[in-house]
Amino acid sequence: MHTDLVAALDIGGTKIAGALVDDSGHLLVRAQRPTPAHEDGETVMRAVEAVLEELAASPLWPAVGAVGIGSAGPVDASAGTVSPVNVPGWRDYPLVARVRRAAGGLPVGLVGDGVAMTAAEHWQGAARGYDNALCLVVSTGVGGGLVLGGRLHTGPSGNAGHIGHISVDLDGDPCPCGARGCVERIASGPNIARRAFDNGWRPGPDGDTSAAAVAASARGGDTIATASFERAAQALAAGIAATATLVEIDIAVIGGGVAGAGEVLFTPLRRALREYATLSFVRHLTVAPALTGTDAGLLGAAAAAPRRPAVAAAG
Amino acid sequence: MHTDLVAALDIGGTKIAGALVDDSGHLLVRAQRPTPAHEDGETVMRAVEAVLEELAASPLWPAVGAVGIGSAGPVDASAGTVSPVNVPGWRDYPLVARVRRAAGGLPVGLVGDGVAMTAAEHWQGAARGYDNALCLVVSTGVGGGLVLGGRLHTGPSGNAGHIGHISVDLDGDPCPCGARGCVERIASGPNIARRAFDNGWRPGPDGDTSAAAVAASARGGDTIATASFERAAQALAAGIAATATLVEIDIAVIGGGVAGAGEVLFTPLRRALREYATLSFVRHLTVAPALTGTDAGLLGAAAAAPRRPAVAAAG
Repeated sequence: MHTDLVAALDIGGTKIAGALVDDSGHLLVRAQRPTPAHEDGETVMRAVEAVLEELAASPLWPAVGAVGIGSAGPVDASAGTVSPVNVPGWRDYPLVARVRRAAGGLPVGLVGDGVAMTAAEHWQGAARGYDNALCLVVSTGVGGGLVLGGRLHTGPSGNAGHIGHISVDLDGDPCPCGARGCVERIASGPNIARRAFDNGWRPGPDGDTSAAAVAASARGGDTIATASFERAAQALAAGIAATATLVEIDIAVIGGGVAGAGEVLFTPLRRALREYATLSFVRHLTVAPALTGTDAGLLGAAAAAPRRPAVAAAG
Repeated sequence: MHTDLVAALDIGGTKIAGALVDDSGHLLVRAQRPTPAHEDGETVMRAVEAVLEELAASPLWPAVGAVGIGSAGPVDASAGTVSPVNVPGWRDYPLVARVRRAAGGLPVGLVGDGVAMTAAEHWQGAARGYDNALCLVVSTGVGGGLVLGGRLHTGPSGNAGHIGHISVDLDGDPCPCGARGCVERIASGPNIARRAFDNGWRPGPDGDTSAAAVAASARGGDTIATASFERAAQALAAGIAATATLVEIDIAVIGGGVAGAGEVLFTPLRRALREYATLSFVRHLTVAPALTGTDAGLLGAAAAAPRRPAVAAAG
C-alpha cells in the first residue's frame, strides 16, 4: 500500500500529461490530453481538469498527498500563475489555485519546465549525486535549470536557469525576447536548421528541414551542416561556461531533441567548453546527455510537489 | 565589553589590511602593511603575520572568536589555499592553515575579494535587505559576488560571482584568461581607457590616461570618451542581465574605482539593461552604486568569519 504518492502534471504547448508518482519515481498511473493551445483559457483548464479526473478515478488516489506542476514558462511560482508563450489564453493564469480546487484542496507546487527537467535529472538522471549542476533542454527553444548546494535553485519566481535567454553575442542577431545574441537565438533546433539552410544546405528527397535532418547530413560529412552544429555548440559552451563561472557547477546535462544529434553536438561542445571555461575552478566541468527522456517533465513535476513534513507523514 | 569580535584580513596585491570588527560592523582596531607582492611567499606571509601581531596587541584581542579573510583570487575555500594573480609567490598557498597558526588556533574563514565585497554590501551597504543580489567591483579587473535566497552564495571553492570572466561576445577579443569577449575585457578601467585611446581620445596636459580621466572627458562632452563608457556599460548590462536570467536577482550593486565615474557609467548602464534584461522575471532589476567604500574588504572579511553557534555564544 502506497501512502505517499504525488500527482504530477506536465503542461506544455502540445500535450497535458499527468501521473501518480511514488517516492521512488515510479509512474504508477498515467493520463494525457492534447493541449487546446489556441482556445480560450477556460477550455485549456478543462483539459487539465480532465487529466486530474482520470487520475482521481484510480484506486490509488486516496494516497496522494500533494500535486506538482511543471509548466511551459514563464511561470510565477510566488503568485501561482503561468503565462506560457505558446498558450495565449493563459496570461497570469491562476493555475495553482485552479488545480488546488480541482484536486480537492491538496497542496500544489509549481515550477517552470526547465526547472522540472532539472529536478528529474537530479533525482533519477545524469545529474544524480551532483550538488551543483546545470541542466539544459535544447529543442524548439533552449531552457534550463540549476541545482546549487544539493538543492534545486528555482529563484523566487520559479524561472531560474533560463540559459536560453542570456546573451553570448551582445551585438548579435535580435532575439524574439527583445535582446540580442541569446543562446537560444543561435543554438535552438530551428536556428540550427535556418542557419544551415541560409548557408546553402538543402534537405534530402523527403524535404525534412529539421535540425535532425541537418544532424544526419553532418554525420554524412556535409561541412555546412557540421558548421551549423559547431556554431550552436559554441553558443552553448559560452552559456554553460558563464553559468559555471557565476555559480560554480560540476556538470552540465543536456536533453531535448537537439541533444539527440549525439556526437555531432557533443564533440564540438566539449571542444568549445575548453575555450570558454578557463578559470581554475571551472576547468573540471563535464558535459553529459540527459537520461530521463520523455518522462522528465512528469518526474520533475513530482519532485516539485510540496513535501509533507516528516512528523505529519508519520502521524 | 565586547564578547563577540572577529579579526578581519583584507589581502590584496597592494596592501594587507586588518581590523577587529564587532557584530554591528564597527572597525575598532586597524592595522596595515604594504603587500610585498613580488617577494617570495614566506615574505608575503610575514607581512600578514605582522598585521595579526599588531591586532593581537590590542586589549580587545581576547574577545576575538574567529578570523575572516577576503583575498585576491582565485582562492580555494575548500582547500584553504590562495593563488592571487598579482602575488606570484603564493600558488596554492595554505593561507588558512598559516593564519590559524598565527592566530593561536582560532577558526578561520576564507572568501575571494569579490565575495567579500558582496558580503559587505549585503550586511551594511546597498544590497542590505535584498535576498537576491549581484555585487560587482569594476576597477583594474571586474569581480563580483552573489547573494541568493538571503545568503552569500560562495560556491564550493569560494569563487562564485566571477562575472568579469563570462563571455558576452563569443567572437570578441581574446582575454588574458584564455576565453574571448569577457566582461572584464570590455568593461575594466584599463580597457575603457585603452579603447578610448585607440579611437583617438587623448589625455589633457597632466598626461593622465586612466579611466577616471576618460570619465572627466566624457563629462565635458567628448564623444569618444562617452562611447568607450557606453561600450563598457553595454558589456556590464549583458553580464548583469545574464546573471539575473540564470539565478534571479533583484539588484546589481556596483563598486570599484570605475563606479566613481557616476552617471557617465550608470546612465548608459541602466539604458542597456532595459535592452538585455527582457524577460518578465528580470525586468524589475535595479542598479545602485556600492556604499561601503574602502572598508568593504574588511567588512566582508569579517562577515565571512565562521560564526560561533548561538548556544556556544550564550554559554
